[in-house]
Amino acid sequence: MSPETMSPEEARAAFRSGHSVPTTGWAPGRTQANLVSVPADWAYDMLLFCQRNPKPCPVLDVTDAGSWTTPLAPGADLRTDLPRYRVWEDGELVDEPTDVVGHWRGDLVSFLIGCSFTFEWSLAAAGVPLRHVAQGRNVAMYVTDRQCRAAGRLRGPLVVSMRPVPPGDLATAIQETSVLPAVHGAPVHCGDPAGLGIADLAEPDFGDPVDAEPDDIPVFWACGVTPQAAVMASRPPFAITHAPGRMFITDARDEQYRVA
Amino acid sequence: MSPETMSPEEARAAFRSGHSVPTTGWAPGRTQANLVSVPADWAYDMLLFCQRNPKPCPVLDVTDAGSWTTPLAPGADLRTDLPRYRVWEDGELVDEPTDVVGHWRGDLVSFLIGCSFTFEWSLAAAGVPLRHVAQGRNVAMYVTDRQCRAAGRLRGPLVVSMRPVPPGDLATAIQETSVLPAVHGAPVHCGDPAGLGIADLAEPDFGDPVDAEPDDIPVFWACGVTPQAAVMASRPPFAITHAPGRMFITDARDEQYRVA
Repeated sequence: MSPETMSPEEARAAFRSGHSVPTTGWAPGRTQANLVSVPADWAYDMLLFCQRNPKPCPVLDVTDAGSWTTPLAPGADLRTDLPRYRVWEDGELVDEPTDVVGHWRGDLVSFLIGCSFTFEWSLAAAGVPLRHVAQGRNVAMYVTDRQCRAAGRLRGPLVVSMRPVPPGDLATAIQETSVLPAVHGAPVHCGDPAGLGIADLAEPDFGDPVDAEPDDIPVFWACGVTPQAAVMASRPPFAITHAPGRMFITDARDEQYRVA
Repeated sequence: MSPETMSPEEARAAFRSGHSVPTTGWAPGRTQANLVSVPADWAYDMLLFCQRNPKPCPVLDVTDAGSWTTPLAPGADLRTDLPRYRVWEDGELVDEPTDVVGHWRGDLVSFLIGCSFTFEWSLAAAGVPLRHVAQGRNVAMYVTDRQCRAAGRLRGPLVVSMRPVPPGDLATAIQETSVLPAVHGAPVHCGDPAGLGIADLAEPDFGDPVDAEPDDIPVFWACGVTPQAAVMASRPPFAITHAPGRMFITDARDEQYRVA
């Protein structure tokens, strides 16, 4: 079975059994989500951080403390159903396992945050080429020089994903993503990466570099790795996140997040 | 000076000096907000309640504890600049003053929540008649039989505002409001009020009844009085809200919340 024909349930089952790959291109039309789990004592700061930075951190669901379930995917287990996780202590990466059953704590509040992989189906359907998908790579992600608005103890830089878009498709790419604010919405920047303080597109901070065509314009969308960057910058005692590009695939349909 | 030509600053100054009227039709094109202030101990529940019920509770800003300022209106004072407030103890209305300086507490976290008065400018510009504005009345608001998704200690019913819309304008009304999700977005219901458990449109729970034309269709939008209904249902020890229809007028422009 190929990723493009899998149901969300089948994809989660594959990841639960240890398959660990980027989820770009998996489970067509189903909403993918970033994960960040923090102790309950940090949950208000994280929720406020997301509210104050809605472009990178559009919240799709928040669990009750200790719960590993979500109404976005009945039957799913947030501790096992992602392809790979990252475990953080005091802002340092301490483990990168394929499940976090052994790391789980009863006080963890989990945030599911919209992911730009969701709108890639809209882009593809509208005829916008996805270079990284064609090249079989994870999307390229960069830490920018823009600071998010702080919330309590949480602060950190804006992280973006970048897709090279042919000039003739730029308007379509902007239109298609604008109507999906729950998955980052319109781009935050187009063109010269220096405008975001990015020195070299060939050296992404997360994911893989992508080969662009000569006329392509780099288009930058706010990215759900931003809360992970806030964990690194703000050093809560403990956190669990997804590994960049290895998302939680929900049962929700992208269409339900379309606003117009 | 008429409300239609006032700047947000002038409107706030009028309210600060005690002028107490519904704000529908005031300060064209500027974003109006519902206010709910709760003790810091209840702030996470309120923020989660808003996140779980984004149609009635789209959060525009959250203050730090004790602060009465917001970046949405530099120089404004949330304790004085609304036309009228409601003060709640254990879910009971105990005062309805024109300022809350004497009621303020250092632990209050204030939530500014999008208001449908914001999109009335879009509706008017698109040619959709606003019956309540023409009749010089507050908008009609109703408690429905739909329960919001609970969050911690907070629960309560969905509250809606209703505007009678001529059949030929219904599509436009839906289109115009759909692209403004930060101020309640598309309607939650059109037509028979019984679908929301509303027995009699002539008896709104908040605001004024409105006279409809014979062919008008009642159109219901989620309403920012919903957190106030949650205060009544859930009985936090203390809360301050705006009085229904008497909103906080921010400096933000409605256009900045348009997603497409």
